[in-house]
Amino acid sequence: VKQKLTLIKLGGSLITDKSKPFTARQGQILRFAKEIKTALKSCKGKLLIAHGSGSFGHTLALRYKTQLGIINSKSIKGFPLVADAAVKINRIVIENFLKVGLPTVSFSPLSFIFTNNQKVSKHLTDQIKNALNIGLIPIVYGDAVMDTKMGFCIYSGEKTLNFLASVLKNDYKITKIIYVTDTDGVYDSQGKTISKITPNNFQKFRKSILGSQKTDVTGGMLHKVEESLKTAKKLKIPTYIINGNKKGNLKEAIFGKPRGTIIEIT
Amino acid sequence: VKQKLTLIKLGGSLITDKSKPFTARQGQILRFAKEIKTALKSCKGKLLIAHGSGSFGHTLALRYKTQLGIINSKSIKGFPLVADAAVKINRIVIENFLKVGLPTVSFSPLSFIFTNNQKVSKHLTDQIKNALNIGLIPIVYGDAVMDTKMGFCIYSGEKTLNFLASVLKNDYKITKIIYVTDTDGVYDSQGKTISKITPNNFQKFRKSILGSQKTDVTGGMLHKVEESLKTAKKLKIPTYIINGNKKGNLKEAIFGKPRGTIIEIT
Repeated sequence: VKQKLTLIKLGGSLITDKSKPFTARQGQILRFAKEIKTALKSCKGKLLIAHGSGSFGHTLALRYKTQLGIINSKSIKGFPLVADAAVKINRIVIENFLKVGLPTVSFSPLSFIFTNNQKVSKHLTDQIKNALNIGLIPIVYGDAVMDTKMGFCIYSGEKTLNFLASVLKNDYKITKIIYVTDTDGVYDSQGKTISKITPNNFQKFRKSILGSQKTDVTGGMLHKVEESLKTAKKLKIPTYIINGNKKGNLKEAIFGKPRGTIIEIT
Repeated sequence: VKQKLTLIKLGGSLITDKSKPFTARQGQILRFAKEIKTALKSCKGKLLIAHGSGSFGHTLALRYKTQLGIINSKSIKGFPLVADAAVKINRIVIENFLKVGLPTVSFSPLSFIFTNNQKVSKHLTDQIKNALNIGLIPIVYGDAVMDTKMGFCIYSGEKTLNFLASVLKNDYKITKIIYVTDTDGVYDSQGKTISKITPNNFQKFRKSILGSQKTDVTGGMLHKVEESLKTAKKLKIPTYIINGNKKGNLKEAIFGKPRGTIIEIT
């Protein structure tokens, strides 16, 4: 019988101050670490965590247009700085998670993912499975990775998490993906949280989701919902979208009690 | 025609103070960065750099016996701390290399190497080739990696460098491996530097090398010489052993003028 696995994505806007370049929200990161630690005391499953790079990666990536690959003479100069920034915020996350005693280990997407035109073409993931098997908590993050066609590209924490879901589903029963964001799930046209989105009721809510969303480089809430519906259909994994700014929400979501929106097939 | 590639190993005893846990020798690291930068101005080849973890990794690895894999209930607790320490010294190296404007990018051995009983069984290296091809300088380091049989093990910077040499030799002409150490190359029984060691004269020097060496967790000078002779025979790559404490030695070695010992076939 397959072991249970929960995937968590900590949004870049929660672990960094998006209005201030290179500013981590240390207190919030430490609280997430504590909520995860508490949750793990009474729930047996395994965890894999991804986080965004918020005001660390985005600041430099925008300056050098790293998401476009090699486009001019400054591109090569920019890449090491963007890769460095991605590791810097990961170091702060790891530091806080180790502080509370969680057995977290970083895996660098730049080192285990190789893309061709922004799609994974080669990868090494058996070492991540091994880490899960022996009881460690792997942490991945939004990163800049090598790309055959473009030279390099940006590979978001969300994309890495979804890619790992597709690989790990053969070995684990992935019970849920938790998106820790800065809204109370997905809002309807009245600004009220939609408790459940399925392929059946999605069209009804589509327009209001589009209207309510903030601008976001990685595609905003509509993109998140559409990706989650794909995951629900293809991998049969439900997604929870919760507000990480509210104390206890992450812990409850790990227990399987999301305060926010559930996206699933039925 | 294959492009030229030089491999450099910066010893842990040079970039850290081995007598003080978690103490980097920042000035020395910065000087290495500057010598490399100067050398690259007048020599065209590509570079790949490995470094040891000195008093960062060794302190915790000894405490938790990480090199033995999972042996008791504390092993799993120790692994994340050893992996963290390995990244910590790498961050200091990267910081100093970026400071002088070298386009260095870290690749995490934990993320791209998977071993079985301490031998590489799976790996991803095409992303490192891509980095070299587009003009970046990959940096790897002594790390703790996942192992099928033991759970995990220690994989030294030297081992990673030699592994990469065996993979990269198909795509590049590896002109030399430079071991930056804290002795003036290899000493004879009089304490004088042996300028050249070949398979022919090695037996003559074997005993004096053994006698002169300091205790070292990774095997000491005799081990380095034996490994270098293997590399010379198998891959036809010469190794330079130089003293990194002396200003200019690294720069001159990159130019192909080692002040120390050359180990090659003839």
